[in-house]
Amino acid sequence: MNQHKTPLTVPPEMKETYEHNYETITHGTGRLMLFAGDQKVEHLNDDFFGERISPENANPEHMFQIAAKSKIGVFAAQLGLIARYGMDYPDLPYLVKLNSKTHLVPTQQAEPVSHQLLTVQDVVQFQQQSGLHIHAVGYTIYLGSEHESEMLTEAAELIYDAHQEGLITVIWAYPRGKAVLDEKEPHLLAGAAGVVACLGADFVKINYPKKEGISSAEALQEAVLAAGRTQVVCAGGSSTNPESFLRTLHDQIHIGGASGNATGRNIHQKPLEEAVRFCNAIYEITVEDKSVEEALKVYEG
Amino acid sequence: MNQHKTPLTVPPEMKETYEHNYETITHGTGRLMLFAGDQKVEHLNDDFFGERISPENANPEHMFQIAAKSKIGVFAAQLGLIARYGMDYPDLPYLVKLNSKTHLVPTQQAEPVSHQLLTVQDVVQFQQQSGLHIHAVGYTIYLGSEHESEMLTEAAELIYDAHQEGLITVIWAYPRGKAVLDEKEPHLLAGAAGVVACLGADFVKINYPKKEGISSAEALQEAVLAAGRTQVVCAGGSSTNPESFLRTLHDQIHIGGASGNATGRNIHQKPLEEAVRFCNAIYEITVEDKSVEEALKVYEG
Amino acid sequence: MNQHKTPLTVPPEMKETYEHNYETITHGTGRLMLFAGDQKVEHLNDDFFGERISPENANPEHMFQIAAKSKIGVFAAQLGLIARYGMDYPDLPYLVKLNSKTHLVPTQQAEPVSHQLLTVQDVVQFQQQSGLHIHAVGYTIYLGSEHESEMLTEAAELIYDAHQEGLITVIWAYPRGKAVLDEKEPHLLAGAAGVVACLGADFVKINYPKKEGISSAEALQEAVLAAGRTQVVCAGGSSTNPESFLRTLHDQIHIGGASGNATGRNIHQKPLEEAVRFCNAIYEITVEDKSVEEALKVYEG
Amino acid sequence: MNQHKTPLTVPPEMKETYEHNYETITHGTGRLMLFAGDQKVEHLNDDFFGERISPENANPEHMFQIAAKSKIGVFAAQLGLIARYGMDYPDLPYLVKLNSKTHLVPTQQAEPVSHQLLTVQDVVQFQQQSGLHIHAVGYTIYLGSEHESEMLTEAAELIYDAHQEGLITVIWAYPRGKAVLDEKEPHLLAGAAGVVACLGADFVKINYPKKEGISSAEALQEAVLAAGRTQVVCAGGSSTNPESFLRTLHDQIHIGGASGNATGRNIHQKPLEEAVRFCNAIYEITVEDKSVEEALKVYEG
Amino acid sequence: MNQHKTPLTVPPEMKETYEHNYETITHGTGRLMLFAGDQKVEHLNDDFFGERISPENANPEHMFQIAAKSKIGVFAAQLGLIARYGMDYPDLPYLVKLNSKTHLVPTQQAEPVSHQLLTVQDVVQFQQQSGLHIHAVGYTIYLGSEHESEMLTEAAELIYDAHQEGLITVIWAYPRGKAVLDEKEPHLLAGAAGVVACLGADFVKINYPKKEGISSAEALQEAVLAAGRTQVVCAGGSSTNPESFLRTLHDQIHIGGASGNATGRNIHQKPLEEAVRFCNAIYEITVEDKSVEEALKVYEG
Repeated sequence: MNQHKTPLTVPPEMKETYEHNYETITHGTGRLMLFAGDQKVEHLNDDFFGERISPENANPEHMFQIAAKSKIGVFAAQLGLIARYGMDYPDLPYLVKLNSKTHLVPTQQAEPVSHQLLTVQDVVQFQQQSGLHIHAVGYTIYLGSEHESEMLTEAAELIYDAHQEGLITVIWAYPRGKAVLDEKEPHLLAGAAGVVACLGADFVKINYPKKEGISSAEALQEAVLAAGRTQVVCAGGSSTNPESFLRTLHDQIHIGGASGNATGRNIHQKPLEEAVRFCNAIYEITVEDKSVEEALKVYEG
Repeated sequence: MNQHKTPLTVPPEMKETYEHNYETITHGTGRLMLFAGDQKVEHLNDDFFGERISPENANPEHMFQIAAKSKIGVFAAQLGLIARYGMDYPDLPYLVKLNSKTHLVPTQQAEPVSHQLLTVQDVVQFQQQSGLHIHAVGYTIYLGSEHESEMLTEAAELIYDAHQEGLITVIWAYPRGKAVLDEKEPHLLAGAAGVVACLGADFVKINYPKKEGISSAEALQEAVLAAGRTQVVCAGGSSTNPESFLRTLHDQIHIGGASGNATGRNIHQKPLEEAVRFCNAIYEITVEDKSVEEALKVYEG
Repeated sequence: MNQHKTPLTVPPEMKETYEHNYETITHGTGRLMLFAGDQKVEHLNDDFFGERISPENANPEHMFQIAAKSKIGVFAAQLGLIARYGMDYPDLPYLVKLNSKTHLVPTQQAEPVSHQLLTVQDVVQFQQQSGLHIHAVGYTIYLGSEHESEMLTEAAELIYDAHQEGLITVIWAYPRGKAVLDEKEPHLLAGAAGVVACLGADFVKINYPKKEGISSAEALQEAVLAAGRTQVVCAGGSSTNPESFLRTLHDQIHIGGASGNATGRNIHQKPLEEAVRFCNAIYEITVEDKSVEEALKVYEG
Repeated sequence: MNQHKTPLTVPPEMKETYEHNYETITHGTGRLMLFAGDQKVEHLNDDFFGERISPENANPEHMFQIAAKSKIGVFAAQLGLIARYGMDYPDLPYLVKLNSKTHLVPTQQAEPVSHQLLTVQDVVQFQQQSGLHIHAVGYTIYLGSEHESEMLTEAAELIYDAHQEGLITVIWAYPRGKAVLDEKEPHLLAGAAGVVACLGADFVKINYPKKEGISSAEALQEAVLAAGRTQVVCAGGSSTNPESFLRTLHDQIHIGGASGNATGRNIHQKPLEEAVRFCNAIYEITVEDKSVEEALKVYEG
Repeated sequence: MNQHKTPLTVPPEMKETYEHNYETITHGTGRLMLFAGDQKVEHLNDDFFGERISPENANPEHMFQIAAKSKIGVFAAQLGLIARYGMDYPDLPYLVKLNSKTHLVPTQQAEPVSHQLLTVQDVVQFQQQSGLHIHAVGYTIYLGSEHESEMLTEAAELIYDAHQEGLITVIWAYPRGKAVLDEKEPHLLAGAAGVVACLGADFVKINYPKKEGISSAEALQEAVLAAGRTQVVCAGGSSTNPESFLRTLHDQIHIGGASGNATGRNIHQKPLEEAVRFCNAIYEITVEDKSVEEALKVYEG
């Protein structure tokens, strides 16, 4: 694991804040367990209501309840949602997701684009007024979209501004658009990770690569290298089998070189108590550096 | 009914103002009776002049007269119209609708878009200069439009800015565009309600869902859950039969879980005296928690 | 005729200025005789040079000369033109037209759009520096264009800003674009007038409606009602016969309920002396409330 | 010739500056000899290197050398180029051309658009820092382009801002785009000149009209009339025969009513010494009001 | 070689800073050896990982290591990347590349566009906070793209702003888009160089021209002339044979008139030690004015 160095876009007087934020969300390990609570925009209600989804998940508060009872690194959600539940969950470590769009318009109809909803300055003001523990901000870029340049500019400015305020930055980097034939191609994902490194973000969230003839965990290594000092996190895939999810996660970290994970529906679609156990199991592997078996024991209670 | 909590985007020094505004337009019940007087832009003169429409409705002042003589929660209109009649109706509770477009360009010709006409700062200045009771602002988003991202950004900023000033926010959330096959599909509408929850608005206005095999009132429940602490209001549909309108409204609240309604033409297309009685009947159900029969008695005078 | 009320977007300290401007351009009658000198952009040189057009009209100063010698309410032109002739015509009552485009791109090629050339703040600065009598500003919206929303926003902001400065506002509202099948349909024009009422403008200029089976003057009534406290002005049509022009104008006011007229080429295409007489004839009907016969006597000298 | 009047967009305290600038570039005659050194962007290297072009012209300094040794009114170039040679040519009278695009994208591929490169405020700051004699700014509008409105807005603001600073303004007005069938049609060019008059510019540069059945010089008269107090300058056409060029120029002024000319490649494609003589010949006709024969003598040395 | 003159866009109080920057990156020779470390965005991971590429190159730090051990003029990279490694490479001479896009969207799908990621003001703030030696900024323009005008404007403003701060400017000028048939045509490249001269940049990076019947080095001369006082640098082509690369470079300078080179993958795809030797060999020719043979000796150690 790289020894973390504070980027020079953090001004000297904010270095302590930045380092505190970094230590807090990685629990001093450099590994990030990001609990993704931002999908109510992108996926509308698909991830929250339906067969095989716990009825508790229909209420957005379910995610806050999980976050409050579990071991996590940071809880990611839009500022508006945080503003409506934060008074009851004042101790959570928050990441404000700064852009989002719905999945309604398919890529074959129009090139994907998602603009910034609020500014870093708004986040800082909100942090001060609310007293919430906001440690980080996030933003999604669709590389390969015809609107890519607009999002690169917003991301670059946002990272710069966030660092000026001592906030940690996470970029979701998804190759998407007519020009992208295979969104999970390892070399392309490595390129995406490298782009985010050039923007100077602290973490880049990419999809888990998938390619015939190579294990995904090994394929991930190229991206981890390309990202340099920007740390890579990825999801455990769409698997709903907890054991295979945790095994994948372990491989991502110990074979692929990932510095954490970003997990949403695999956690919050479960009933509260089970979700908490699963969250903790993920935490065991990601932050506590435990084995799959130890994590499974946590999950199984 | 949820116990209302002031969102954290309202700064401490504006909490009292916000709560006063919220109490005022919901009459302390958390239920909103929104009288929609903003359709002269979207529907041009179609809702105001023609067969089966009272001739009184041809004059915009008709709506102010109804609002002045009825029990309502808030009267929604564009700032420009309020500015021309407000001196004669200084005691109305106003909501400034901040965007609007005409229905002239059909969705199949071009993706819907409606930009903000004025800023929250303009509204606040207007409020101070005019002394009018402006309690809230409103904005329409067309989810699924190729311009969705522009409107999400305007809405997010507007909600944030309005809360900073202690104003209540209502978002009209309509799935619309080439990509939207069924604007009234319950799961999609629940998704729309969830998006607005992520933006942090106080109320979301959605269309009443419609799906074969499920009652609309039951179908509405998914949206109410998805909206979390953001309260759902919807219209009583296009029904012009007062009794069925009121019955629908009662179902929306007591079966669907709605926290109010937004009604325009069903009120203002009637002659003044009848419109007032109908408005009051709606109020009985929405705010006074009365039965359909009691409301009908009010309507029938 | 409506009794005029100062809109609440005029702050108390500018009320006197606003009322002075309103009184001045309507000569205390609420009726506006707008001499349109802004067509050199929209129509290029078509209205100014050619057969059946007085050679004097080739020179833009011709319009200033007419305005100076006639009775008018306000002379509308772009700021740039006013800036080049104003020193020789310092006593004219001016309206600054704030947007304009040429007619070169046909509607079937591209949707019409015309952006603001200068800001209200520029107009106010110009007014102060030049000492000219600028009483009003104007702006054209193409309703039904795919760019409608951009123009609605500019218009709303401009009206708000102008009222803040005590200036009178006139909106030219033209339904135009692929989606508009009949630009002179009375119900559509009434809708356009209603839209402008929602923007809070003082006057709306619409085309004179035209529909089989109803007289244009009667058809105009719907728009006048829809506009509420926003006053309707329209042109006398393309007629070049002075008598029928004046008769139409009289009908617009006394049957249709218009509060004035906006006339350009019917005046300035005539030689100076005749143009002045015609201008005065229009004034007789519009402002002095005279009969067609009396006005014709003025025209005939 | 019109007696020049300072436009009212020049504030009283800048009147002296404006008049000094105007007097300087017209040498007190109201006639402008504009040496166009701004074509390295629009025409790339086509006008500067190739057969029948003096090899000296390959170096941009050639134009500064000509300007320095000749009698001219003003030398037009982009600010960037002026910034790199100005220290060696500190006494030239400069016009900063504020927009430019290349001719690479043909009109049939995409509608022409050229945005402002820098602001008037930048020009003023540059003028103060460099001590150069910047008397004027220039801008090109493509009327009839689907982007026309964007350029009209930039031009209007630029003219307003420039006059506020006492700078002279020259607008290049070219009808261009799919909608324009004949860019040199006299009536259309007159319309273009009239548009620029409405923007309030001091000079409008149009192409020399060309129409069967009328001499170009006579055809120009309509534009000169339409431009009113805005003065018309045009090029001598693509003729490379000096005598016919000068004869055309003389006709433009004495038959057409032009107030000068804008000439680039006809001058700078010649070797230095010949270019200087030709420049001076043009000056003789334009500013010194000499005959073609006298000018030819100057050219022939 | 032109004697360098400080452009007048550098204000007097920043002249010393500018000249220091210029002297530093050209080592007092006017020749620039630009080590291009900015391709992780444009080329994603294609230049950094794969066959025939040293595995060391997979890590972005490889480039910093080369830059630290070699003789170079300036090291070009995005600000974000510099911010993450700069604390370990505090003595490098940096150029901040201010825009970048990926190559994912092919030119035949959409016209190329790349917007500015950060402002010059951000760069200056970063420089002050970090204490890094940032001497220059860079920007890419795609001439012939339908978005050309947007990029010309950003470039012009950026050059102006950078000079105001005493920073050196390098413009990458690539003809690209549907309208460009041959990106390496010498006359077109000369045009591109001339455009950048009009923007006032210090250096223009163009591709090495290629045309049947003329040597590339001779073909380059037209561009060098067209660029005037703006200095031309170009790459040594895609050749991976070090000797032919160095010979090409020598020809570019001594036949073509180039003032340096911009080299990336030809350096960083090599293992560290070899990359350093190659870098130094390039430096020998570019800055030390040595022969190919002398440079080869350096490369061969």
